[in-house]
Amino acid sequence: MKKISEGTISRLFTYLRELEQLADFKIPTISSAELGERVNLSDAQVRKDLSYFGQFGVSGSGYDIRKLRDRLAKILGKDQAWQVAVVGAGNLGSALLSYPGFRLRGFKLVAAFDSSPEKIGRRIKGVTVEPMERLGESIREKGVEMAVITVPAGSAQQAAEQLVAAGIKCILNFSPTSLMVPAEIIVKDVHLCREMETLSYFLQHRR
Amino acid sequence: MKKISEGTISRLFTYLRELEQLADFKIPTISSAELGERVNLSDAQVRKDLSYFGQFGVSGSGYDIRKLRDRLAKILGKDQAWQVAVVGAGNLGSALLSYPGFRLRGFKLVAAFDSSPEKIGRRIKGVTVEPMERLGESIREKGVEMAVITVPAGSAQQAAEQLVAAGIKCILNFSPTSLMVPAEIIVKDVHLCREMETLSYFLQHRR
Repeated sequence: MKKISEGTISRLFTYLRELEQLADFKIPTISSAELGERVNLSDAQVRKDLSYFGQFGVSGSGYDIRKLRDRLAKILGKDQAWQVAVVGAGNLGSALLSYPGFRLRGFKLVAAFDSSPEKIGRRIKGVTVEPMERLGESIREKGVEMAVITVPAGSAQQAAEQLVAAGIKCILNFSPTSLMVPAEIIVKDVHLCREMETLSYFLQHRR
Repeated sequence: MKKISEGTISRLFTYLRELEQLADFKIPTISSAELGERVNLSDAQVRKDLSYFGQFGVSGSGYDIRKLRDRLAKILGKDQAWQVAVVGAGNLGSALLSYPGFRLRGFKLVAAFDSSPEKIGRRIKGVTVEPMERLGESIREKGVEMAVITVPAGSAQQAAEQLVAAGIKCILNFSPTSLMVPAEIIVKDVHLCREMETLSYFLQHRR
Protein backbone atom coordinates (compact mmCIF):
# COMPACT_ATOMS: atom_id res chain seq x y z
CA MET A 1 0.00 0.00 0.00
CA LYS A 2 1.21 3.49 -0.86
CA LYS A 3 2.09 5.76 2.00
CA ILE A 4 -0.82 8.10 2.48
CA SER A 5 -0.79 11.49 4.14
CA GLU A 6 -2.50 12.76 7.26
CA GLY A 7 -4.60 15.09 5.10
CA THR A 8 -5.96 12.15 3.13
CA ILE A 9 -6.68 10.19 6.30
CA SER A 10 -8.53 13.12 7.78
CA ARG A 11 -10.68 13.33 4.62
CA LEU A 12 -11.32 9.56 4.75
CA PHE A 13 -12.76 10.09 8.25
CA THR A 14 -14.97 12.83 6.83
CA TYR A 15 -16.25 10.44 4.13
CA LEU A 16 -16.78 7.74 6.76
CA ARG A 17 -18.91 10.02 8.98
CA GLU A 18 -20.98 11.06 5.97
CA LEU A 19 -21.44 7.47 4.82
CA GLU A 20 -22.49 6.39 8.33
CA GLN A 21 -25.29 8.98 8.21
CA LEU A 22 -26.35 8.01 4.69
CA ALA A 23 -26.40 4.32 5.64
CA ASP A 24 -28.61 5.18 8.64
CA PHE A 25 -31.10 6.63 6.15
CA LYS A 26 -30.89 3.39 4.13
CA ILE A 27 -29.58 5.15 1.02
CA PRO A 28 -27.92 2.41 -1.11
CA THR A 29 -25.43 4.20 -3.40
CA ILE A 30 -23.76 7.57 -3.95
CA SER A 31 -21.60 9.00 -6.74
CA SER A 32 -18.22 10.57 -6.07
CA ALA A 33 -19.67 13.92 -7.21
CA GLU A 34 -22.57 13.72 -4.73
CA LEU A 35 -20.31 12.60 -1.89
CA GLY A 36 -17.92 15.42 -2.74
CA GLU A 37 -20.73 17.94 -2.71
CA ARG A 38 -21.91 16.81 0.74
CA VAL A 39 -18.46 17.29 2.27
CA ASN A 40 -17.45 20.17 0.01
CA LEU A 41 -14.65 18.52 -1.90
CA SER A 42 -14.28 18.19 -5.67
CA ASP A 43 -15.34 15.05 -7.50
CA ALA A 44 -11.69 14.52 -8.54
CA GLN A 45 -10.51 14.79 -4.92
CA VAL A 46 -12.97 12.16 -3.71
CA ARG A 47 -12.00 9.74 -6.49
CA LYS A 48 -8.30 10.33 -5.86
CA ASP A 49 -8.60 9.76 -2.11
CA LEU A 50 -10.63 6.58 -2.46
CA SER A 51 -8.43 5.21 -5.25
CA TYR A 52 -5.60 4.68 -2.74
CA PHE A 53 -7.51 1.68 -1.49
CA GLY A 54 -8.51 0.01 -4.74
CA GLN A 55 -11.77 0.11 -6.62
CA PHE A 56 -14.78 0.89 -4.45
CA GLY A 57 -17.02 2.28 -7.18
CA VAL A 58 -19.60 0.44 -9.26
CA SER A 59 -19.57 1.93 -12.75
CA GLY A 60 -22.80 3.83 -13.48
CA SER A 61 -24.37 3.58 -10.02
CA GLY A 62 -21.61 5.06 -7.85
CA TYR A 63 -20.33 3.63 -4.58
CA ASP A 64 -22.20 1.03 -2.53
CA ILE A 65 -22.61 3.06 0.70
CA ARG A 66 -22.60 0.20 3.23
CA LYS A 67 -19.67 -1.59 1.60
CA LEU A 68 -17.65 1.61 1.35
CA ARG A 69 -18.47 2.48 4.97
CA ASP A 70 -17.34 -0.94 6.24
CA ARG A 71 -14.15 -0.88 4.16
CA LEU A 72 -13.26 2.61 5.35
CA ALA A 73 -13.97 1.71 9.00
CA LYS A 74 -11.62 -1.26 8.71
CA ILE A 75 -8.91 0.67 6.87
CA LEU A 76 -9.07 3.48 9.42
CA GLY A 77 -8.94 1.18 12.44
CA LYS A 78 -12.42 2.25 13.57
CA ASP A 79 -13.72 -1.30 13.87
CA GLN A 80 -11.96 -1.87 17.19
CA ALA A 81 -11.11 -0.21 20.52
CA TRP A 82 -7.73 1.30 21.44
CA GLN A 83 -6.15 1.65 24.88
CA VAL A 84 -4.81 5.15 25.47
CA ALA A 85 -2.55 6.68 28.15
CA VAL A 86 -2.51 10.35 29.13
CA VAL A 87 0.81 11.87 30.23
CA GLY A 88 0.16 14.97 32.32
CA ALA A 89 -2.78 15.10 34.71
CA GLY A 90 -3.12 18.90 34.77
CA ASN A 91 -6.13 20.82 33.48
CA LEU A 92 -6.00 19.53 29.92
CA GLY A 93 -5.17 15.94 30.90
CA SER A 94 -8.03 15.91 33.42
CA ALA A 95 -10.39 17.40 30.82
CA LEU A 96 -9.50 14.66 28.33
CA LEU A 97 -9.91 11.91 30.95
CA SER A 98 -13.36 13.31 31.76
CA TYR A 99 -14.49 13.73 28.13
CA PRO A 100 -17.28 11.23 27.38
CA GLY A 101 -16.75 11.25 23.62
CA PHE A 102 -13.58 9.17 23.50
CA ARG A 103 -15.02 5.91 24.74
CA LEU A 104 -17.97 6.23 22.35
CA ARG A 105 -15.51 6.45 19.48
CA GLY A 106 -13.37 3.49 20.51
CA PHE A 107 -10.67 5.20 22.56
CA LYS A 108 -10.33 3.90 26.12
CA LEU A 109 -8.30 6.21 28.34
CA VAL A 110 -6.94 3.59 30.74
CA ALA A 111 -3.79 5.15 32.26
CA ALA A 112 -2.62 8.57 33.44
CA PHE A 113 0.82 9.72 34.58
CA ASP A 114 2.20 12.83 36.26
CA SER A 115 5.39 13.84 38.04
CA SER A 116 3.70 16.03 40.63
CA PRO A 117 3.25 14.40 44.07
CA GLU A 118 -0.09 16.21 44.60
CA LYS A 119 -1.52 14.62 41.48
CA ILE A 120 -0.21 11.09 41.90
CA GLY A 121 -2.84 8.79 43.40
CA ARG A 122 -5.78 10.99 42.37
CA ARG A 123 -8.60 9.23 40.62
CA ILE A 124 -10.07 10.89 37.51
CA LYS A 125 -13.09 9.11 35.99
CA GLY A 126 -11.91 5.73 37.22
CA VAL A 127 -8.26 6.18 36.23
CA THR A 128 -5.64 6.53 38.98
CA VAL A 129 -2.80 8.96 38.25
CA GLU A 130 0.51 7.07 38.49
CA PRO A 131 4.06 8.44 38.90
CA MET A 132 6.17 8.85 35.75
CA GLU A 133 8.49 6.09 37.03
CA ARG A 134 5.64 3.59 36.59
CA LEU A 135 5.00 4.60 32.94
CA GLY A 136 6.79 1.75 31.13
CA GLU A 137 5.52 -1.02 33.35
CA SER A 138 1.93 0.25 33.46
CA ILE A 139 1.74 0.76 29.69
CA ARG A 140 2.86 -2.83 29.09
CA GLU A 141 0.51 -4.23 31.74
CA LYS A 142 -2.51 -2.37 30.33
CA GLY A 143 -1.72 -2.99 26.66
CA VAL A 144 -1.65 0.74 25.88
CA GLU A 145 -0.85 1.48 22.22
CA MET A 146 -1.43 5.22 21.95
CA ALA A 147 -0.49 8.14 24.21
CA VAL A 148 -1.53 11.74 24.64
CA ILE A 149 0.99 14.30 25.93
CA THR A 150 -0.49 17.24 27.85
CA VAL A 151 2.51 18.24 29.98
CA PRO A 152 4.05 21.76 29.69
CA ALA A 153 6.45 22.44 26.81
CA GLY A 154 9.53 21.99 29.00
CA SER A 155 8.66 18.42 30.01
CA ALA A 156 7.22 17.16 26.72
CA GLN A 157 10.44 15.85 25.14
CA GLN A 158 11.28 13.75 28.20
CA ALA A 159 7.73 12.37 28.30
CA ALA A 160 7.99 11.43 24.62
CA GLU A 161 11.26 9.61 25.22
CA GLN A 162 9.77 7.60 28.08
CA LEU A 163 6.79 6.69 25.88
CA VAL A 164 9.02 5.58 23.01
CA ALA A 165 11.13 3.50 25.41
CA ALA A 166 7.89 1.87 26.61
CA GLY A 167 7.06 0.82 23.06
CA ILE A 168 4.45 3.46 22.15
CA LYS A 169 4.29 4.10 18.40
CA CYS A 170 1.64 6.85 18.19
CA ILE A 171 1.60 10.10 20.16
CA LEU A 172 -0.94 12.90 20.18
CA ASN A 173 0.97 15.98 21.32
CA PHE A 174 -0.97 18.87 22.89
CA SER A 175 2.17 20.55 24.24
CA PRO A 176 3.20 23.60 22.20
CA THR A 177 6.60 22.18 21.27
CA SER A 178 8.00 19.97 18.52
CA LEU A 179 9.02 16.51 19.70
CA MET A 180 12.13 14.75 18.47
CA VAL A 181 11.40 11.05 18.10
CA PRO A 182 12.71 8.17 15.95
CA ALA A 183 11.37 8.25 12.37
CA GLU A 184 9.06 5.26 12.84
CA ILE A 185 7.08 6.96 15.62
CA ILE A 186 3.98 8.88 14.52
CA VAL A 187 3.43 12.19 16.30
CA LYS A 188 0.39 14.33 15.68
CA ASP A 189 0.60 17.86 17.03
CA VAL A 190 -2.73 19.30 18.13
CA HIS A 191 -3.20 23.02 17.66
CA LEU A 192 -6.15 24.10 19.77
CA CYS A 193 -6.22 27.35 17.80
CA ARG A 194 -7.11 25.76 14.49
CA GLU A 195 -10.76 25.35 15.41
CA MET A 196 -10.95 28.93 16.54
CA GLU A 197 -9.35 30.15 13.35
CA THR A 198 -12.23 29.13 11.11
CA LEU A 199 -14.46 31.35 13.23
CA SER A 200 -12.31 34.42 12.61
CA TYR A 201 -13.32 34.22 8.95
CA PHE A 202 -17.01 34.38 9.83
CA LEU A 203 -16.50 37.22 12.29
CA GLN A 204 -14.53 39.17 9.72
CA HIS A 205 -17.46 38.95 7.32
CA ARG A 206 -20.14 39.92 9.83
CA ARG A 207 -18.79 43.18 10.99
CA MET B 1 -19.41 36.99 -2.26
CA LYS B 2 -20.68 33.42 -2.42
CA LYS B 3 -21.32 31.65 0.86
CA ILE B 4 -18.38 29.36 1.48
CA SER B 5 -18.25 26.30 3.68
CA GLU B 6 -16.28 25.53 6.80
CA GLY B 7 -14.36 22.86 4.87
CA THR B 8 -13.19 25.42 2.34
CA ILE B 9 -12.23 27.88 5.07
CA SER B 10 -10.24 25.20 6.86
CA ARG B 11 -8.36 24.48 3.60
CA LEU B 12 -7.73 28.21 3.07
CA PHE B 13 -6.00 28.25 6.47
CA THR B 14 -3.89 25.31 5.34
CA TYR B 15 -2.86 27.22 2.19
CA LEU B 16 -2.13 30.30 4.29
CA ARG B 17 0.20 28.40 6.67
CA GLU B 18 2.02 26.86 3.71
CA LEU B 19 2.34 30.23 1.93
CA GLU B 20 3.69 31.85 5.12
CA GLN B 21 6.47 29.25 5.19
CA LEU B 22 7.23 29.63 1.49
CA ALA B 23 7.33 33.43 1.82
CA ASP B 24 9.80 33.07 4.71
CA PHE B 25 12.07 31.21 2.29
CA LYS B 26 11.67 34.08 -0.23
CA ILE B 27 10.11 31.84 -2.87
CA PRO B 28 8.26 34.21 -5.25
CA THR B 29 5.60 32.09 -7.00
CA ILE B 30 3.91 28.70 -6.86
CA SER B 31 1.53 26.84 -9.20
CA SER B 32 -1.77 25.41 -7.99
CA ALA B 33 -0.40 21.91 -8.67
CA GLU B 34 2.71 22.50 -6.52
CA LEU B 35 0.69 24.08 -3.73
CA GLY B 36 -1.75 21.17 -3.88
CA GLU B 37 1.08 18.67 -3.68
CA ARG B 38 2.53 20.34 -0.58
CA VAL B 39 -0.77 20.16 1.28
CA ASN B 40 -1.95 16.94 -0.37
CA LEU B 41 -4.90 18.29 -2.30
CA SER B 42 -5.58 17.99 -6.00
CA ASP B 43 -4.71 20.77 -8.42
CA ALA B 44 -8.44 21.15 -9.22
CA GLN B 45 -9.32 21.49 -5.51
CA VAL B 46 -6.78 24.27 -4.96
CA ARG B 47 -7.99 26.20 -8.00
CA LYS B 48 -11.62 25.74 -6.99
CA ASP B 49 -11.02 26.94 -3.41
CA LEU B 50 -9.03 30.00 -4.46
CA SER B 51 -11.47 30.91 -7.24
CA TYR B 52 -14.09 31.87 -4.62
CA PHE B 53 -12.10 35.02 -4.06
CA GLY B 54 -11.41 36.13 -7.61
CA GLN B 55 -8.31 35.70 -9.72
CA PHE B 56 -5.12 35.26 -7.70
CA GLY B 57 -3.11 33.46 -10.36
CA VAL B 58 -0.74 34.92 -12.93
CA SER B 59 -1.05 32.87 -16.10
CA GLY B 60 2.10 30.84 -16.77
CA SER B 61 3.97 31.65 -13.54
CA GLY B 62 1.40 30.56 -10.93
CA TYR B 63 0.39 32.49 -7.83
CA ASP B 64 2.41 35.37 -6.38
CA ILE B 65 3.13 33.90 -2.93
CA ARG B 66 3.31 37.12 -0.91
CA LYS B 67 0.24 38.64 -2.54
CA LEU B 68 -1.79 35.47 -2.09
CA ARG B 69 -0.65 35.19 1.54
CA ASP B 70 -1.69 38.77 2.32
CA ARG B 71 -5.03 38.42 0.55
CA LEU B 72 -5.80 35.17 2.37
CA ALA B 73 -4.79 36.63 5.76
CA LYS B 74 -7.18 39.53 5.18
CA ILE B 75 -10.02 37.33 3.91
CA LEU B 76 -9.62 34.98 6.87
CA GLY B 77 -9.53 37.73 9.49
CA LYS B 78 -5.96 36.83 10.48
CA ASP B 79 -4.67 40.37 10.08
CA GLN B 80 -6.16 41.48 13.40
CA ALA B 81 -6.73 40.39 17.02
CA TRP B 82 -10.01 39.05 18.44
CA GLN B 83 -11.30 39.28 22.01
CA VAL B 84 -12.57 35.93 23.26
CA ALA B 85 -14.60 34.87 26.33
CA VAL B 86 -14.52 31.41 27.89
CA VAL B 87 -17.72 30.11 29.48
CA GLY B 88 -16.88 27.37 31.97
CA ALA B 89 -13.75 27.62 34.12
CA GLY B 90 -13.39 23.89 34.78
CA ASN B 91 -10.48 21.76 33.58
CA LEU B 92 -10.90 22.47 29.87
CA GLY B 93 -11.69 26.18 30.31
CA SER B 94 -8.62 26.59 32.56
CA ALA B 95 -6.48 24.68 30.07
CA LEU B 96 -7.59 26.98 27.24
CA LEU B 97 -6.99 30.12 29.32
CA SER B 98 -3.46 28.85 30.08
CA TYR B 99 -2.63 27.84 26.49
CA PRO B 100 0.07 30.17 25.14
CA GLY B 101 -0.75 29.53 21.48
CA PHE B 102 -3.93 31.59 21.27
CA ARG B 103 -2.43 35.00 21.83
CA LEU B 104 0.33 34.28 19.31
CA ARG B 105 -2.36 33.62 16.72
CA GLY B 106 -4.43 36.72 17.43
CA PHE B 107 -6.95 35.38 19.96
CA LYS B 108 -7.01 37.25 23.25
CA LEU B 109 -8.85 35.36 25.98
CA VAL B 110 -10.03 38.32 28.02
CA ALA B 111 -13.03 37.03 30.02
CA ALA B 112 -14.08 33.85 31.83
CA PHE B 113 -17.42 32.92 33.41
CA ASP B 114 -18.61 30.15 35.67
CA SER B 115 -21.64 29.43 37.84
CA SER B 116 -19.71 27.68 40.61
CA PRO B 117 -19.01 29.86 43.70
CA GLU B 118 -15.61 28.13 44.23
CA LYS B 119 -14.46 29.19 40.79
CA ILE B 120 -15.77 32.76 40.75
CA GLY B 121 -13.03 35.24 41.65
CA ARG B 122 -10.17 32.89 40.74
CA ARG B 123 -7.50 34.35 38.51
CA ILE B 124 -6.29 32.20 35.61
CA LYS B 125 -3.43 33.69 33.59
CA GLY B 126 -4.53 37.21 34.34
CA VAL B 127 -8.25 36.63 33.73
CA THR B 128 -10.63 36.75 36.71
CA VAL B 129 -13.50 34.25 36.60
CA GLU B 130 -16.80 36.17 36.80
CA PRO B 131 -20.28 34.91 37.71
CA MET B 132 -22.64 34.01 34.85
CA GLU B 133 -24.85 36.96 35.85
CA ARG B 134 -22.07 39.34 34.78
CA LEU B 135 -21.73 37.75 31.32
CA GLY B 136 -23.69 40.27 29.21
CA GLU B 137 -22.26 43.34 30.85
CA SER B 138 -18.67 42.09 30.88
CA ILE B 139 -18.79 40.99 27.23
CA ARG B 140 -19.98 44.43 26.16
CA GLU B 141 -17.40 46.23 28.35
CA LYS B 142 -14.52 44.16 27.01
CA GLY B 143 -15.59 44.20 23.36
CA VAL B 144 -15.71 40.38 23.21
CA GLU B 145 -16.80 39.07 19.79
CA MET B 146 -16.23 35.32 20.09
CA ALA B 147 -16.95 32.81 22.86
CA VAL B 148 -15.85 29.31 23.78
CA ILE B 149 -18.23 27.02 25.66
CA THR B 150 -16.57 24.42 27.91
CA VAL B 151 -19.40 23.79 30.39
CA PRO B 152 -20.92 20.29 30.79
CA ALA B 153 -23.55 19.16 28.25
CA GLY B 154 -26.44 19.97 30.59
CA SER B 155 -25.51 23.66 30.93
CA ALA B 156 -24.36 24.36 27.39
CA GLN B 157 -27.70 25.43 25.88
CA GLN B 158 -28.30 28.00 28.61
CA ALA B 159 -24.77 29.34 28.21
CA ALA B 160 -25.34 29.68 24.46
CA GLU B 161 -28.58 31.59 25.02
CA GLN B 162 -26.86 34.02 27.39
CA LEU B 163 -24.08 34.56 24.85
CA VAL B 164 -26.54 35.20 22.02
CA ALA B 165 -28.46 37.65 24.22
CA ALA B 166 -25.14 39.42 24.89
CA GLY B 167 -24.63 39.90 21.14
CA ILE B 168 -22.07 37.13 20.47
CA LYS B 169 -22.20 35.89 16.87
CA CYS B 170 -19.58 33.11 16.89
CA ILE B 171 -19.34 30.24 19.35
CA LEU B 172 -16.79 27.47 19.61
CA ASN B 173 -18.57 24.62 21.39
CA PHE B 174 -16.49 22.02 23.25
CA SER B 175 -19.50 20.59 25.09
CA PRO B 176 -20.67 17.25 23.67
CA THR B 177 -24.14 18.55 22.79
CA SER B 178 -25.78 20.29 19.85
CA LEU B 179 -26.73 23.88 20.53
CA MET B 180 -29.94 25.44 19.27
CA VAL B 181 -29.28 29.04 18.27
CA PRO B 182 -30.78 31.52 15.80
CA ALA B 183 -29.73 30.87 12.18
CA GLU B 184 -27.42 33.88 11.98
CA ILE B 185 -25.20 32.63 14.81
CA ILE B 186 -22.19 30.53 13.79
CA VAL B 187 -21.46 27.57 16.05
CA LYS B 188 -18.47 25.33 15.53
CA ASP B 189 -18.54 22.07 17.46
CA VAL B 190 -15.12 20.80 18.50
CA HIS B 191 -14.66 17.06 18.62
CA LEU B 192 -11.54 16.33 20.63
CA CYS B 193 -11.61 12.80 19.23
CA ARG B 194 -10.99 13.82 15.63
CA GLU B 195 -7.30 14.36 16.19
CA MET B 196 -7.00 11.00 17.86
CA GLU B 197 -8.83 9.29 15.05
CA THR B 198 -6.17 9.92 12.44
CA LEU B 199 -3.76 8.06 14.70
CA SER B 200 -5.92 4.94 14.76
CA TYR B 201 -5.22 4.53 11.05
CA PHE B 202 -1.48 4.49 11.64
CA LEU B 203 -1.77 2.08 14.56
CA GLN B 204 -3.91 -0.24 12.52
CA HIS B 205 -1.18 -0.44 9.87
CA ARG B 206 1.69 -0.99 12.29
CA ARG B 207 0.47 -4.05 14.05
